[in-house]
Amino acid sequence: MARTKLSGFPEWSVEGRLIELHVLDSLRHVFELHGFSNIETRAVETLDSLLSKGETSKEVYLLERLQGLEKGEHTDKDRRIGLHFDLTVPLARYVLDNVNDLHFPFKRYQIQKVWRGERPQEGRFREFTQADIDIVGNGALPFHFEVDLPLVMAEALSSLPIGPFKILANNRKVVQGVCEALGVGDVDAALRGLDKLDKIGPEGVTEELAEAGISGDQARTLLTMAQIHTDDVAELRDGIDALELSNDILREGLDELCALISDAHERMPGAVFADLKIARGLDYYTGSVYETVLTEHPSLGSICSGGRYDSLASDGKRSYPGVGLSIGVSRLVSRMIAQPMVTATRTSPAAVVVAVMNEEDRGHSNRIAATLRSRGIPTDVAPTAAKFGKQIRYADRLGIPFVWFPDASEGDTVKDIRSGDQVEADCETWMPPAEDMHPRIASATQED
Amino acid sequence: MARTKLSGFPEWSVEGRLIELHVLDSLRHVFELHGFSNIETRAVETLDSLLSKGETSKEVYLLERLQGLEKGEHTDKDRRIGLHFDLTVPLARYVLDNVNDLHFPFKRYQIQKVWRGERPQEGRFREFTQADIDIVGNGALPFHFEVDLPLVMAEALSSLPIGPFKILANNRKVVQGVCEALGVGDVDAALRGLDKLDKIGPEGVTEELAEAGISGDQARTLLTMAQIHTDDVAELRDGIDALELSNDILREGLDELCALISDAHERMPGAVFADLKIARGLDYYTGSVYETVLTEHPSLGSICSGGRYDSLASDGKRSYPGVGLSIGVSRLVSRMIAQPMVTATRTSPAAVVVAVMNEEDRGHSNRIAATLRSRGIPTDVAPTAAKFGKQIRYADRLGIPFVWFPDASEGDTVKDIRSGDQVEADCETWMPPAEDMHPRIASATQED
Repeated sequence: MARTKLSGFPEWSVEGRLIELHVLDSLRHVFELHGFSNIETRAVETLDSLLSKGETSKEVYLLERLQGLEKGEHTDKDRRIGLHFDLTVPLARYVLDNVNDLHFPFKRYQIQKVWRGERPQEGRFREFTQADIDIVGNGALPFHFEVDLPLVMAEALSSLPIGPFKILANNRKVVQGVCEALGVGDVDAALRGLDKLDKIGPEGVTEELAEAGISGDQARTLLTMAQIHTDDVAELRDGIDALELSNDILREGLDELCALISDAHERMPGAVFADLKIARGLDYYTGSVYETVLTEHPSLGSICSGGRYDSLASDGKRSYPGVGLSIGVSRLVSRMIAQPMVTATRTSPAAVVVAVMNEEDRGHSNRIAATLRSRGIPTDVAPTAAKFGKQIRYADRLGIPFVWFPDASEGDTVKDIRSGDQVEADCETWMPPAEDMHPRIASATQED
Repeated sequence: MARTKLSGFPEWSVEGRLIELHVLDSLRHVFELHGFSNIETRAVETLDSLLSKGETSKEVYLLERLQGLEKGEHTDKDRRIGLHFDLTVPLARYVLDNVNDLHFPFKRYQIQKVWRGERPQEGRFREFTQADIDIVGNGALPFHFEVDLPLVMAEALSSLPIGPFKILANNRKVVQGVCEALGVGDVDAALRGLDKLDKIGPEGVTEELAEAGISGDQARTLLTMAQIHTDDVAELRDGIDALELSNDILREGLDELCALISDAHERMPGAVFADLKIARGLDYYTGSVYETVLTEHPSLGSICSGGRYDSLASDGKRSYPGVGLSIGVSRLVSRMIAQPMVTATRTSPAAVVVAVMNEEDRGHSNRIAATLRSRGIPTDVAPTAAKFGKQIRYADRLGIPFVWFPDASEGDTVKDIRSGDQVEADCETWMPPAEDMHPRIASATQED
């Protein structure tokens, strides 16, 4: 049996998985509270579909049948299938496949593994979980969803033990308007340059932009714009006005960005900031774009990104605009575990272990356990009728707080093995304290 | 954008996914109630690991990096990785990888997609979800777990709206003992023959067995054994005694099977039957084996199978025995949807839609929605400020039972759109009836 860690394919311990489940359950709860329906799509798409957006930067894992390969049968190029590298391409295909059965605007959440055939030496995940919410319209999609969506995500992130965060928003139309008003022809080059601001600083960006034919004056204005970071609408308007530029697309974009910031400020103060240097993804988004940073963990980069597409999907006759946000769950959970930001109070779901006096009496212990379970109490039974000390150690190692001792003559007792307190108990009525019913995820002491 | 249904890769509608989520949530609840911890393993294993049990019948999907292939780089034979085809091979590898961090006996449940590169014409799923529970020991694993495990699964299956079922149990040692006492050398051939009893009948089986050198007399005894089907221990002992055969391994196996049937009969009457024709998997299981049939859906075959391995995993020095059961969730859910055995009361998680009088007042509707959500009520807001009839239709199409009408002057009202009843309501205090809080999965009228 091979024992091989495969780099890029993370696996959590039992405790790590409890933390991940807590994250996934919390996200699901908030998404459903806001009326998002769940779907799952198949793990594979046709290669055609995977490459339809020209996403060559996201490497694809192709599938080949082993038994086919062994007979020398390679899959024909036009029948190749590969693992999805995100949940957006599959959503677009799912919408087109099911267009007659869906009701629009279609609000869905989707939590699944995705795969990217990254080169191993990059040390990036090749398998990871994403949690996406998207709203897809049929032909049209009102702007207000570009405000609603980051606020749903802010509420979801608030439910996680990850400390404070900021959602940073920009708008493709603002940057494009500024570029056009400045006479910058290569908007994509401008975006690529600005995207590196945090990494290479203003001088570096100026040099990059110069290579794309963007003058020093133009670069200075772009850099002034990129420094705008505020959750105050007046400050945002003043900052753009100070550039002394104007055209229709800039005005439209600024109105949208101001509406987003002002509405978000009212509904959830401190959650959403305009940040004009956000440029990643501006090449394929058409309106609002979002990134999310954890205040106490800036090195993680954006943990949740997305934006508005005017044409998420199209069947030629009609297009389906969408706005979506995606959390990189595995990277986030990986940090939560490694830091550690949180710990679990125990690794077993059981709140109590019923001891077994001797193997002949296992049936009696099973009946007690069945009664406790019928009352909703997660219950384990000792694996062997070992000495009580050993049975207590079994509970202790799994973090199970209570051990139940059956005693037909004197009456049953239950022991809190943390405090040592042992009291008489009846399995028809005893309840563990509410906080001990299920494993809890608690913040770890942080020295960040 | 390609719109291709890929045969063997099922996808559910929004309602179908709700049904699947209900199944998965129910299974998880019961597994955790019994103290099983959850793990997930990576989707891929080394080819070495996948083939280590000689499982050539389960076809493997290999992964190739597209960008590697395009450069003519095929993965070296000894570095190939493929998608897992079950959750047992990954469990064995996970146990060895984490042996120092796990506590034994290790009780885990695992619910994940698996993939099999079946030939498309067979019409079988190539991607499907399995839900497994296993208990893995370190060096030893007491027999009582072979009784506990099918009863956990019986409780889990009882929680699903799938009608009555029977878990059928046999024991490798009984069949092997009978074969040895009869002088049948090729036990595997005997098992393969008996496994076809339901398909080809006793005459067909006798012919098959004859080809493997098993005489007519031997075949008659094996067929007599295979007809034993009972949840009564006395009847089981009588049936085996009537074969007039005896040896140590037969006695040991019969004692185990009797202990299983008698204990199961006491703890959950009617759930577990001894069925001596159960032979699938007896070639790799070493003790108890299980299959599960739905009384009202026999054509589905076994929906949940498993058994005991004396050596689930081994690191050379030490072996890790295990007992496990696996539900084929996708095939079960596929039948539940197609029949239909069940339907969902609605497709949106929302219990109520807050209407929007006009777009200027959307903020007011958002505030009402936020209040309802803060009280745990899943709430949607109308996508546009259309005429009320259209807003009600939006709710109706998603099956959302209530529409909330904000009215600053006269006071808010909420309408049950099923009955048409409309009453005054305050978003700080109104609650939907408990049965309308979340979508419910209800049995469909069945004509099976």
